[in-house]
Amino acid sequence: MPGEFDLIDWIRRQPAGGSMVLVPPGDDLAVIKWPADLLLVGVDQALDGVHFDSAVHSPTAIGRKVMNRNLSDCAAMACLPVAAVATVAMPRGTALSYARKLYMGMREAAGAFSCAIVGGDTATWDGRLALTVSILGRAGGISPIRRSGARAGDGIYVSGPLGGSLLGRHMTFTPRIELARELGASGRVTAMIDLSDGLSRDLGHICRESGVGAQINARLIPIHNDALRLAKQTGRSALHHALHDGEDYELLFAARGVEFPGCTRIGRFTRQRSIHLIDGRQRRTLVPRGWEHRF
Amino acid sequence: MPGEFDLIDWIRRQPAGGSMVLVPPGDDLAVIKWPADLLLVGVDQALDGVHFDSAVHSPTAIGRKVMNRNLSDCAAMACLPVAAVATVAMPRGTALSYARKLYMGMREAAGAFSCAIVGGDTATWDGRLALTVSILGRAGGISPIRRSGARAGDGIYVSGPLGGSLLGRHMTFTPRIELARELGASGRVTAMIDLSDGLSRDLGHICRESGVGAQINARLIPIHNDALRLAKQTGRSALHHALHDGEDYELLFAARGVEFPGCTRIGRFTRQRSIHLIDGRQRRTLVPRGWEHRF
Repeated sequence: MPGEFDLIDWIRRQPAGGSMVLVPPGDDLAVIKWPADLLLVGVDQALDGVHFDSAVHSPTAIGRKVMNRNLSDCAAMACLPVAAVATVAMPRGTALSYARKLYMGMREAAGAFSCAIVGGDTATWDGRLALTVSILGRAGGISPIRRSGARAGDGIYVSGPLGGSLLGRHMTFTPRIELARELGASGRVTAMIDLSDGLSRDLGHICRESGVGAQINARLIPIHNDALRLAKQTGRSALHHALHDGEDYELLFAARGVEFPGCTRIGRFTRQRSIHLIDGRQRRTLVPRGWEHRF
Repeated sequence: MPGEFDLIDWIRRQPAGGSMVLVPPGDDLAVIKWPADLLLVGVDQALDGVHFDSAVHSPTAIGRKVMNRNLSDCAAMACLPVAAVATVAMPRGTALSYARKLYMGMREAAGAFSCAIVGGDTATWDGRLALTVSILGRAGGISPIRRSGARAGDGIYVSGPLGGSLLGRHMTFTPRIELARELGASGRVTAMIDLSDGLSRDLGHICRESGVGAQINARLIPIHNDALRLAKQTGRSALHHALHDGEDYELLFAARGVEFPGCTRIGRFTRQRSIHLIDGRQRRTLVPRGWEHRF
C-alpha cells in the first residue's frame, strides 16, 4: 500500500521549475533566492462541496482550480507569480493516482505562468477532500495595485463578461495575469480586485477600501451567455447573475478616462459613498449579495 | 448571523506586527518588503482526528499547534520566521468566537518569534475542521541547514527527550528556533531536521538525503517520562515510543566532535548505508515505524 512518502518521492521527480529555487521540495522548507523586490503572499483553499464537487469534477480540474484561484489573486495585484506551496487532505482510501492528478492539475496551472511548486503537505483523514495553495509573487517593476486607490471620477472597468460561472467556468477560467501586468504597466489603474465574491460585493470591497462610492449602469455590464442560460433555470434575471454570482475571476478595476482593449467601462466611482445601479430610468441601491461563507 | 467578512474585519483590527509588512491582511495579497536575503517557505496542515481532536483540544491549542508545526520547520532549517498565512475550514455552524480563538492561538505562537500573520482564507463547509499555515522565513546571516549535509563520522544529536508526545506534548511543544539559530551560528552542524515523523523515520530522511547510514545507541537516547508512562498503557517499551512515536518537535542533527549544551549525542553517521540500533550486545537494523499517512 503506497504511503505519503511515495507521493512525495513522485513529486520530487517532477520538474521543479524556477531558476530562483535553490532547495526544491524534499527538505523541511524550500529555499528561494529572492531578488531585491517586493514579495506578495496570499493563500486560498478549495473545499469539496464548496468550491468543487469531487463527485462531478476531475482531480486534474480540481487541482487546476485551487492553483488558478491563487494566480488570480496575483492578477488582482498585478504581480508576477514566482512560487507556490500546496496542501492536500484526502479521504482515507484515496488512490495514489488521484493524488497525482490533483498535483498535475496544480502544476499545469502554475506552469502556464512559470510558477514553481516548491513544497507541500499531504495527509489522509476521515474527512472530505480539502486543498490549499499559498502563492508568492513579486512586483517585477510594477507597483502592486491595491484595492484602496480608487478616486471619485475614476471609471469602473471589468475585463470580461460576467455571471453564470457555476455552469462550469468557475473550474476552467484563466487567471488574467497578462492583462493585469499590462494594466499595471499603463500606470493608469488606481485600484483592482479579481471578481471572486461577485461584482456587487467586490465593488463594495474597492469602495470601502478607497473611501468612495460607485454608480454602475446595468446596460453596460457585459453579461455572459452562461448568465442567460442559468437565468432560464433559476427564474432570476441574467443581470442578477452577472451582479451577484461570483467566481468570474475577471478583473474589476478603477482608471481614469481611457480605453483598455477587451475591457468594458460599466460606471464610475463617486464621492457619495453608496453604490447605485442605474437601470434605464431606475436608480437603486446595489446590495451586495455575492458569495460569503456563513458561520 | 456573522459571516466570513466579520471575521476578516476582526482579524484586520488585530496588531499585524512586522515592520517588513507594507500591505497587511485585507487586500488580495499581503505585500512584504523583503530584504536581500534567502527566502524559505513551507506549509503544514492540522486536521481534526489526525493532528488534533476538536472534541478534546481547545481552539487556542489547535491554532497554536498548526503554527508551531511550521515554526518547527523553520527551526529545522535554522532560519528566522518572518510571516505566515493561514487557512481555516470550519464545520458549518461553528461559532465566530471559536474561529477567533483558533486565530488567537496561531497569533500567540507566531508572536513568540516575531512572526506576523499577513493573510488567510476562512470558509465553512460540510466537513471537519482543517487548518493550514504557510510560513516564510529568511536566512538572516545563517546558511539554511539542509537534510543532505551529514558525513560519515559526524555525531548524531537530539535536542531533548523523546517519546510519548501523544499524552499531550504534541499540542504544547515550543519550536526550537533559538537553539537552531545557535546551532546554525556555530558552523558545526552539517544536517538537521525536526522530529515530527519519529526518530527512526526522520533519521532515515537525513541518511537518505546525505547518502550515509547511521548507528545509534539505545542507551544514549534520552527517553521522555511520557514515553515511560505511555509504555505502561501500551505494553510496548519506552524505547519503542522514543524511537517511533513522532511529534517530538525536537531537533535531530549531525555535527562533528563537539558538545552542544542541552543536546545529547546518540550515535554517529556511517559510510555503510543502513541504520542500526545498538542495544547492549544486540545490534539490529532499525526499521522506520514513525508516522506516515496511509492512502
